[in-house]
Amino acid sequence: MAQNIYDNTEFFAGYSQLPRQVYGLDGAPEWPLIQTMLPDLTNKNIIDLGCGFGWASRWMRANGAASVLGLDISENMINRARELTSDPEIEYNITDLETVSLPVNAYDFAYSALALHYLRDLDRLARMVHSALKPNSDFVFIVEHPIYMAASNPQWLLDHDGRKTWPVNGYSIEGQRQTDWFAKGVIKYHRTLASMINILIKSGFNIARIEEYAPTQEQLENMPYLAEELERPMMLLVSAHKA
Amino acid sequence: MAQNIYDNTEFFAGYSQLPRQVYGLDGAPEWPLIQTMLPDLTNKNIIDLGCGFGWASRWMRANGAASVLGLDISENMINRARELTSDPEIEYNITDLETVSLPVNAYDFAYSALALHYLRDLDRLARMVHSALKPNSDFVFIVEHPIYMAASNPQWLLDHDGRKTWPVNGYSIEGQRQTDWFAKGVIKYHRTLASMINILIKSGFNIARIEEYAPTQEQLENMPYLAEELERPMMLLVSAHKA
Repeated sequence: MAQNIYDNTEFFAGYSQLPRQVYGLDGAPEWPLIQTMLPDLTNKNIIDLGCGFGWASRWMRANGAASVLGLDISENMINRARELTSDPEIEYNITDLETVSLPVNAYDFAYSALALHYLRDLDRLARMVHSALKPNSDFVFIVEHPIYMAASNPQWLLDHDGRKTWPVNGYSIEGQRQTDWFAKGVIKYHRTLASMINILIKSGFNIARIEEYAPTQEQLENMPYLAEELERPMMLLVSAHKA
Repeated sequence: MAQNIYDNTEFFAGYSQLPRQVYGLDGAPEWPLIQTMLPDLTNKNIIDLGCGFGWASRWMRANGAASVLGLDISENMINRARELTSDPEIEYNITDLETVSLPVNAYDFAYSALALHYLRDLDRLARMVHSALKPNSDFVFIVEHPIYMAASNPQWLLDHDGRKTWPVNGYSIEGQRQTDWFAKGVIKYHRTLASMINILIKSGFNIARIEEYAPTQEQLENMPYLAEELERPMMLLVSAHKA
């Protein structure tokens, strides 16, 4: 099973203070870009893979979805998500995406934000999602960017000119990466960008659009600390289509 | 028009000594990977965009192509390419890919190796290639990888642990990059990986496969100096399909 760091007390305490958890989607600078990648949600039955506190699940339901099923490995997250809604058309379940079984031909849209880099086996999940979607539907997901994840010691350094620079090493060596992020030894799985795209294609998806989040001019004016996001992409956003 | 560094005497003298020019395709470690991305070439009319000395043009003709048209901005390159064949079904023309006009529905396969990162306007070329291809055909190209190209001073450095590391900065800031490579002020154009993929999709292509060249175990045993290519990808390989 995937590591469930979100039920680590120390991790959860820190994680819960992130702007994107305190303020929800308004605290996630990539959210305006994600919105441009979402299909029309009206009357859609949606699955949210790695739903966390359920911010996106509730937003999608409020924006036309007929129902949303949010899945997350963390009991902490699911409990909080359940507290935040009484909508009978939103369901949250504790589920390990590494081993999840989904019904065939059951959903009109699949969404996943910042969860898939915790999975050892992306092939299995991609095939599962493809089979769970109805024809003519989309899978939109956000993962940590491989440029952000690859290095053995991913922290800013200075280049030969003294410029703030992101380190890349071991890019082609896929597999486990350990970082200290609110807790020691958080486990993620690095895959090259090519691997992720090819896994989707082999699962039957067509690639519809890719984005690498960078702040807009307006965001830079309001949140100058986002400027470092111009230096290297932290997030990869993918829209994949099942014909 | 695109910078024509290949007709700079100093540049050309250095460039001509690269293993991939002296030994042809056998000197290009990415060539075995490229071969796995090529369609069956039998009886195909092929265009080779940025053909250089024409190594790939001649290989494709020798491997079943009915004809190959190789285009390159450099008179030096085209002259050498012409010297290397007397095959009437291989034609080489001096052409700037930035402004090239291609006949509609004329080719069965389009190939380009390490040329497109010299172009300021990739949209125009992608649309031109799509229109020049017949239905049910492919466009396979290799470009310098945006991870390799992004930084203002792209040279190895050491991370906080003393590990050999590639610098990434300015990734989201697209546009001109100047490097010194056999000559001062070689101009290339950095585009994010997302931009390149989205340009192809908007031009009407389906993304069929992406690769980021890394050496195989066998290559590492025979050419240990290739180990640094595991640290960061230097080349992006794309197979795009016109339905």
